[in-house]
Amino acid sequence: MSEPTFSIPRGMKDIEPVEMERRIWVQDRILDVLRRYGFKIVEPTPIENLETLEAKCGPDIRSEIYWFKDKAGRNLGLRFDLTVGMTRMVANRFDLPEPIKICAVAGMWRYDEPQFARYRFFHQWDAEIYGSAEPEADADAICVGMDVLENVGLREYEVRINNRKLVEGFLRRIGITQLDQVESVIRVVDKLRKIPRSAFLGELRKTGLEGSTLQRVLDFVEVSGEPDEVLSRLKEFLGGDEDQAMRGYDELVRLFDVLEGFGRVRRCILDMSTVRGIGYYDGIVFEAFDKGSEDIGAVFGGGRYDKLSQIYGKRDIPATGVAGGIERLMISLERSSAMPGLPSVPRVFVAAVNETSRRKVWDIVQRLRDKGYSVDFDLRKRSLRGQMEYADSVKIPFVVIVGPKEIARGVVKVRDTARRSEVEVEVERINEAVSASS
Amino acid sequence: MSEPTFSIPRGMKDIEPVEMERRIWVQDRILDVLRRYGFKIVEPTPIENLETLEAKCGPDIRSEIYWFKDKAGRNLGLRFDLTVGMTRMVANRFDLPEPIKICAVAGMWRYDEPQFARYRFFHQWDAEIYGSAEPEADADAICVGMDVLENVGLREYEVRINNRKLVEGFLRRIGITQLDQVESVIRVVDKLRKIPRSAFLGELRKTGLEGSTLQRVLDFVEVSGEPDEVLSRLKEFLGGDEDQAMRGYDELVRLFDVLEGFGRVRRCILDMSTVRGIGYYDGIVFEAFDKGSEDIGAVFGGGRYDKLSQIYGKRDIPATGVAGGIERLMISLERSSAMPGLPSVPRVFVAAVNETSRRKVWDIVQRLRDKGYSVDFDLRKRSLRGQMEYADSVKIPFVVIVGPKEIARGVVKVRDTARRSEVEVEVERINEAVSASS
Repeated sequence: MSEPTFSIPRGMKDIEPVEMERRIWVQDRILDVLRRYGFKIVEPTPIENLETLEAKCGPDIRSEIYWFKDKAGRNLGLRFDLTVGMTRMVANRFDLPEPIKICAVAGMWRYDEPQFARYRFFHQWDAEIYGSAEPEADADAICVGMDVLENVGLREYEVRINNRKLVEGFLRRIGITQLDQVESVIRVVDKLRKIPRSAFLGELRKTGLEGSTLQRVLDFVEVSGEPDEVLSRLKEFLGGDEDQAMRGYDELVRLFDVLEGFGRVRRCILDMSTVRGIGYYDGIVFEAFDKGSEDIGAVFGGGRYDKLSQIYGKRDIPATGVAGGIERLMISLERSSAMPGLPSVPRVFVAAVNETSRRKVWDIVQRLRDKGYSVDFDLRKRSLRGQMEYADSVKIPFVVIVGPKEIARGVVKVRDTARRSEVEVEVERINEAVSASS
Repeated sequence: MSEPTFSIPRGMKDIEPVEMERRIWVQDRILDVLRRYGFKIVEPTPIENLETLEAKCGPDIRSEIYWFKDKAGRNLGLRFDLTVGMTRMVANRFDLPEPIKICAVAGMWRYDEPQFARYRFFHQWDAEIYGSAEPEADADAICVGMDVLENVGLREYEVRINNRKLVEGFLRRIGITQLDQVESVIRVVDKLRKIPRSAFLGELRKTGLEGSTLQRVLDFVEVSGEPDEVLSRLKEFLGGDEDQAMRGYDELVRLFDVLEGFGRVRRCILDMSTVRGIGYYDGIVFEAFDKGSEDIGAVFGGGRYDKLSQIYGKRDIPATGVAGGIERLMISLERSSAMPGLPSVPRVFVAAVNETSRRKVWDIVQRLRDKGYSVDFDLRKRSLRGQMEYADSVKIPFVVIVGPKEIARGVVKVRDTARRSEVEVEVERINEAVSASS
C-alpha cells in the first residue's frame, strides 16, 4: 500500500497554539472596541450564491474566489469579504432604526497567489454604518479603526484620508470626463506608493494622460500633509465652480472638524493619492499604515460606498465602513514587540509520588481547576521522575508533588520550575503558592 | 432589468446580533474550561484535500460534505469536523512531548438535509488527547465535557458511558464474529433510544440476528444504570474468558475509579446501548444529554479512537477526545433559561441640544468610550427630539443631554430611559450616573 501523505491544500495552513492564542487575544481586543462604539456583532453566511458575490465586483471575481456548484447544480461561492454579506443583510430591512451600525470579525477566502503572510484563508474585522450620509459617520468609522490599533497596542501609525468626489471632480475639471478613463486613472493613482516611480509614470501614461494634463494629475496626487495646510493648498486645484469636487472638499472640512472634536487630527494626513483601487467607493476614503510595517500594506482601510446597497436592496442606503486584516495586524504587533506574552502551557502540573497518591492528585487537580487555574496531571502512568521530566520538557511553571507522607500531614511540595526551588505548603494554600510570579 | 433577490443558499443563515453575542459568550466560557484543563487551542485548515476527508470515513462521505475541484483540478472539501484536522496535525509530529492535548472551537460544513436547529454551517468545540492509552485520559475528556456544561450553566444532564471493546467482545462471545455483522449490529444499537421499539427490533433482525442470540443482544443493550451496580450485573454477560470484553470491562472499572476521584460519578450512567454509530471508535465511548432537551441529541460526545492516527501518520498514537455542538448547546441553554441576558444596544447615547453643543458631545463620547462604555451619538444631524426618539426606539438605557446653558455650568442632564427620570450631573461624574442599574 502506498504511503499517503495528507498534505494540506496550497495557500492553506493549520493554526498552531501560539498563533491561535494571539489571534484570540487580538480578536477580543477588537470586539471590545467595536462594542464601545455601539456596533452590533453579526456574521453573514460563509457560503453565498455566486450571483451575490458577482453583484459587487462583476463576474471577473470568479478568478479570485472559491466557487463551485452544489449537488443541486447551483453556483455557490465562499465569502471573500464581510461587506457584501452585511450589506445584503441590511439592504432589505425596513424595520431597523437607522443608522444601522453592525460589525463582524470572521474568516474569508480568496483564491490569490499565496505570498508572504498572505494565505487563502484569513480573518478580518469589519464595521459598517448604514443610513447616514453625514461626515460624522465617516469620522466614527475612522475613530473606531484608530481605537482598534490603540487597543491592541499599536501606537506608531498614520491615517491617510481623501475623498473620491474630490479626486473625480478634479479629474473632470481638467478634462478627464470619460468614466472609463477616470476609473483607470484612479486605479493607477492607488499605486503611487506601492510601485517604483518609473512604473507609476508608465502606467499613468497608459491611461491616455499626456503633456500638461499628466503634469496636473501628478501635481495633484502628490498633495499630502497636515489636513489644515492641505485644505488651503487644494484651493489652487479647485475652481470653486465644480460641484462634485467642492462637495468632496466640504465633506472633508466637516470630517476634520469632527475628528478634531474627537482629538484625532494629529494622526491624520490628507493625501490626494489615497483613493482605494476598488470601484464602489464614492466619498471619503482612508487607509491606515503602521509606520514600522508599511510594506505589509494598510492595517485598516475603508470609506463611503453610498451606491452598493442599491445593488442588494430595493432602495438607497448611504453607507460607510472600515475593515482590517487580523493576521496583518498580528504581524505588525509582533514586529513592534507590542504582542503580549500569552500563556501557552498549563500553569500547574500535579505529580503523584506513587500509585496511592493518585487519588489525592485528582482531588487537587479538580480544586485548582475550579479556581480557574490551568492544570494538568499524569495521563500515562509515569513514574514520579517521568512526570517531572514531562513537566520540565513542556516548561510548566509549577509542579505540585503529592506524596503519601506529606498528605498524611496535610501538605504538598510545590516546585518552581524556573527557580528550581521547592517549598512545602498546606493543601488549602496551594493556589497562593502557584499564584506567585515564577 | 429583472429585480435580483440575493437570497442565501439553502441550509445557510446569517447570524443576527442577539445570537452572535450568545455564541461569543458560550465560546468564551468553553475556551475558559478548555484552558483550565491544559488544552492548547489550534485551528485546522477549513479546506482540506478531499482524500484527507475520505480517509476517515470512506468515499461515501462525498455525499454528505461540500467538495469541489479547485482551479488546478485538485479535489478539495470543506472540513466536516475538527477531529480529522487535529489528528492530521499531530500524526506526523514526533517533536511534541506526549500526551498532546489540543482543542479547537470553530465552524464546519455538512451537506445534510436542513432540519430544526440544524444548518449546513455550524460550530463545535472539540478537545483531543493524543498519546495516552490510559483511562485517565478518557476521564479527562469526560470531565472537560462536564465542566463545559457546568460553566455555561447547564446543570441537568447525564453522561452515558460504555466501552466498544466490551460490546464487541460480548457480541463475539455469543457468536457474532463477522466484522460486517458486528458493525451493523452496533449501528442499530446506537438507535435504541432514537427510534420506536418496533423499528429498532426490525432493524436488529435485518442484521441477521434471531432467536436466542437476538434475545441476548436485547438483554445486553438494555443494561443501564448506576456504574457500580451495572459493573456487577455485567458479570453475568461476560464469561471472563473473552479477552476483548474483559479488557473493556477493566478499562471501565479504572475509568470510574478516576471519575470517582474527580467527584463525577453521580452524573454518570453505565449504559450498554451507548455505542456511538461511527466506525472508528474502539474503546471507551460516551454521550451527554441535557435532561430537558434529549430531543436535540447529545450535548457532547466522544470516545477513544486509537487507530485513526495510523491513517494520517506513520505510527500509532492512542487517542481519545470529546466534542459538542455550539448551536445545540445554545438551544439547551435558551430552553432551560440558563442563557444570561447580554447587552445588545449601546449603554449610553449622547445627544446634542443644538449645533453648538455637538463639539462637547464628541468630547463626552470619547471620554466615555475610553472608560469602556458602549456609547453612541447622532450621525444624522437630527434635532434633539429626533435624537431622543432614536435612543428610545433602540432602547438605549441612558441618554446624556448636552446643552449650551448646562455646559456653561459644567453639567449635563442624564436621562434614565426606562424610569423616564432625569438628573443633572457634573461632566466628570457622567460615568457614575450611567453605571447605576437602569
